[in-house]
Amino acid sequence: MKIAIAQLNFHIGNFESNTQKMLEAIQQAKDKEADIICFSELSTTGYPPRDFLEFDDFIHLAEESIEKLTEAAVGIAVVVGSPSRNPVPEGKDLFNSAYFLADGKVLHVQHKSLLPTYDIFDEYRYFEPDKNWKVVEYRGKKIALTICEDIWNIGNENPLYTVCPLDQMIDQKPDFILNLSASPFSFDQADTRIEIVKANVDRYKIPMFYVNHVGAQTALIFDGGSLVVSPNGKIYEELPHFKEALKMYDLAEVEQGEKNRPYPKHKYAMIQDALILGIKDYFGKLGFTKAAVGLSGGIDSAVTAALAAQALGPENVRCILMPSHFSSDHSVEDAKKLAENFGMPYDIIPIESVYHSYIDLLKPTFEGQPFNLTEENIQARVRGMILMAISNKFGNIVLNTSNKSEAAVGYGTLYGDMCGGLSVIGDLYKTEVFELARFINEEKEWIPENTITKPPSAELRPNQKDSDSLPDYDILDQILYNYIEKRSDPQDIIAMGFDEAIVRRALRLVNTNEFKRYQTPPMLRISSKAFGMGRRMPIVGKYLS
Amino acid sequence: MKIAIAQLNFHIGNFESNTQKMLEAIQQAKDKEADIICFSELSTTGYPPRDFLEFDDFIHLAEESIEKLTEAAVGIAVVVGSPSRNPVPEGKDLFNSAYFLADGKVLHVQHKSLLPTYDIFDEYRYFEPDKNWKVVEYRGKKIALTICEDIWNIGNENPLYTVCPLDQMIDQKPDFILNLSASPFSFDQADTRIEIVKANVDRYKIPMFYVNHVGAQTALIFDGGSLVVSPNGKIYEELPHFKEALKMYDLAEVEQGEKNRPYPKHKYAMIQDALILGIKDYFGKLGFTKAAVGLSGGIDSAVTAALAAQALGPENVRCILMPSHFSSDHSVEDAKKLAENFGMPYDIIPIESVYHSYIDLLKPTFEGQPFNLTEENIQARVRGMILMAISNKFGNIVLNTSNKSEAAVGYGTLYGDMCGGLSVIGDLYKTEVFELARFINEEKEWIPENTITKPPSAELRPNQKDSDSLPDYDILDQILYNYIEKRSDPQDIIAMGFDEAIVRRALRLVNTNEFKRYQTPPMLRISSKAFGMGRRMPIVGKYLS
Repeated sequence: MKIAIAQLNFHIGNFESNTQKMLEAIQQAKDKEADIICFSELSTTGYPPRDFLEFDDFIHLAEESIEKLTEAAVGIAVVVGSPSRNPVPEGKDLFNSAYFLADGKVLHVQHKSLLPTYDIFDEYRYFEPDKNWKVVEYRGKKIALTICEDIWNIGNENPLYTVCPLDQMIDQKPDFILNLSASPFSFDQADTRIEIVKANVDRYKIPMFYVNHVGAQTALIFDGGSLVVSPNGKIYEELPHFKEALKMYDLAEVEQGEKNRPYPKHKYAMIQDALILGIKDYFGKLGFTKAAVGLSGGIDSAVTAALAAQALGPENVRCILMPSHFSSDHSVEDAKKLAENFGMPYDIIPIESVYHSYIDLLKPTFEGQPFNLTEENIQARVRGMILMAISNKFGNIVLNTSNKSEAAVGYGTLYGDMCGGLSVIGDLYKTEVFELARFINEEKEWIPENTITKPPSAELRPNQKDSDSLPDYDILDQILYNYIEKRSDPQDIIAMGFDEAIVRRALRLVNTNEFKRYQTPPMLRISSKAFGMGRRMPIVGKYLS
Repeated sequence: MKIAIAQLNFHIGNFESNTQKMLEAIQQAKDKEADIICFSELSTTGYPPRDFLEFDDFIHLAEESIEKLTEAAVGIAVVVGSPSRNPVPEGKDLFNSAYFLADGKVLHVQHKSLLPTYDIFDEYRYFEPDKNWKVVEYRGKKIALTICEDIWNIGNENPLYTVCPLDQMIDQKPDFILNLSASPFSFDQADTRIEIVKANVDRYKIPMFYVNHVGAQTALIFDGGSLVVSPNGKIYEELPHFKEALKMYDLAEVEQGEKNRPYPKHKYAMIQDALILGIKDYFGKLGFTKAAVGLSGGIDSAVTAALAAQALGPENVRCILMPSHFSSDHSVEDAKKLAENFGMPYDIIPIESVYHSYIDLLKPTFEGQPFNLTEENIQARVRGMILMAISNKFGNIVLNTSNKSEAAVGYGTLYGDMCGGLSVIGDLYKTEVFELARFINEEKEWIPENTITKPPSAELRPNQKDSDSLPDYDILDQILYNYIEKRSDPQDIIAMGFDEAIVRRALRLVNTNEFKRYQTPPMLRISSKAFGMGRRMPIVGKYLS
């Protein structure tokens, strides 16, 4: 038996293109005489469709896709993820289903049992969990269909769930397991995923074909890396990450084992690829080609522009240098050098004239008030507004250049440097931005060394340094990581050896700046806990604040 | 038996103040010789605590509050909502619980069974549903404890759920029902709530004491309106809306019936009160007292300022008039008149000088490009930035003045008129803003009549009218209501008699402007489907777009 797995980049709600993509893959698989082709979770709709699922018309369009795919399922079986309607009035209206289509008919529909409802996941908002498990028979083989999270409760050891779908199916003696996934990237997730898939195979001793979605959907990046695992628990093949792939396997060969091709994993290589895909798909799926980035000469905007150049082509990344009287000479030089290194076009638009026109205009209103954060914010906002004007006039999407440390403690100006359509490095702590810069520079000094080595500064007042207002990033980032990713309590973080006053201040800043993060652009998610849909905090609260 | 119900305004995460408030209410109830006092859902933490629930320290603080309340529960029983830990490793870590405290001990803990996971609710993200129901006995009476949604599946007829907690408890022959709620306001919710509570009592023929939370938590407004219902199914008393209240009832009298005091309900009276509470609590709970509002002379900013004046006192609402060369004479006059009617201080800051400094600065960059939306947006953004500068300098929170129609179709400028800390009328369609303005003016012309009668215009180009770019609001708002609140399919909306091209265009605008709404301030929720946490849509999608 020949099994094809198709790791494709779908577009949420774009039924026409998603279906067409699958029809083409089916044809290719048929040409190669595959018996079965398997796609990823919710491939008709794209994942996650979110509240689109509440529209009857949307579900109807998914059903139409399934009809088209069913017609194409002749001479080959097609396994595809799509929502299906719950016929029972009790419970949620929909299931998250795997359709098994063959001989021009729907042979079986298996629904997802384990519905992640944490972090970025809202599946119980929409779907009813399945409580019936039936192995499907096709061409003499028995197949266990599972969907993503269904294989993440091995032997019912995951405290989140009370049932293990494969334990329920194994008595029906399946020959192999198909898993349709939409498992989002975080830099430590690819390894975890391999462990989970292997642990399943270790338990059941039958091959597994794990088909993951690839492509970015706003903030979420799906990395592919689909897996074929032999009954001996060893990876038979790992598909590429961050790329579409269609591959075919002979079941007998997979059963026998060997052919071990693990994909090399390096934290910053993966992050770089993830962010490039994130930018590419954000633009591509919205129908845009050109970006605008404000280059300050600092590391955040340098890394953002470097990634954009790789994602969109340097000619499509318009760099805007907006010096003020507080900018140091090297800032403009470093920014120019960066643009030139990549071949990105750049404009120099000094902000002083507009800045002063604001100051003059507000003089009567601000009579007797000293220079303070207000004037710093005006500078940042003049820059933001220039970027937005260029965006409006020429159709460039502004890329936001804030990092996770800044976003965490609110070290940024709303509508100023916090503006933009997409935040590229908003899920990287400042120390990680440095690491990524060094990784980008591994073979060539793309990013001017001076940008990496000089002390970080917002340059909004004379001789300003980030370290004037914030703890050193080496310390701050560790505190933030423990609070945000690890959800450690303040007393536990202090017990790790950090200064109590610094910890309390950092956490207070995190919690009092929720109002700023509420209005930031979506941030490409590369960690296990990113700001945005995966972290839902009250704005008006009084906890650690 | 005397039962006190305390409808209080809690602050999320502010354990000290929430606990203190309850201790004072307990003392008052004791002074009046109450046997029992009942508070609302999750009253130790405030509702909704969201992902704060994922911090062990946060749960620990809630447990400490329960300890303090337990100590106070001597001579009186205290019923209070608070999270509790699930001792079983399987399932979610927490329950959403009602503690019954008496004789200085925890007499019983009943957990919530029905966990809303739709619209603004994420309860299954945090809580395990309860499957054990035990009526608690106290001073010779048996009491059925329920939490909010628990009473919304009468006789198991609500398709969302599979169990009806009161059906499970009724065999234990409770004498009355306590319900601890945190049921957010929408203008049609108060009536629905009464129907639900009465239908429960009709079924079980025992009194119910329904205690609702009051107070605003960022976008969500809880309106109170707690209910006491006699076994004959008639309201014995309805507590005030939008206000704290502590009331005591003699069970025997409630059982006997009569004393019918329904609260008068008028759509715009309720909306006005809700928005005033929303503003007041946003400011009060964040520790701010002063607002800034940009007054254009149009109806949206007029209504926003009028509500703010009532919430914060007119002296605390600084109005900023920012005319440009496109502003009509009447705009400034209407805006001044409004400020004067309420006694709000105002500044006139013409934007032309800054606008022209932008235009001059960008002249080389924009060479050969015609005047278009870019220049309109620059005007809107100059205004936004002036408001933010005043906010930064003087500590005023900027109130956003966008309405729901604009937010829906993206008729607004990001970082311009879409800026601010809180959107006051972002959940009111334009036609509803007019209705509210007329309601505010019922007894006196607070809002200049001209502001209400002139055709809406953004005044960003000569003789501009909203109707140049948008369908008439009478039509548009109906289409939007059917799509957003009713989640009707496009073909169904067209079948209602609306022009197909207008419907398609309106829905396309809604779906392509998700990126703008992602960055808007929180909007006070007054409808059954508001933008924000209750409506979760992909940004990068291709559905009806």
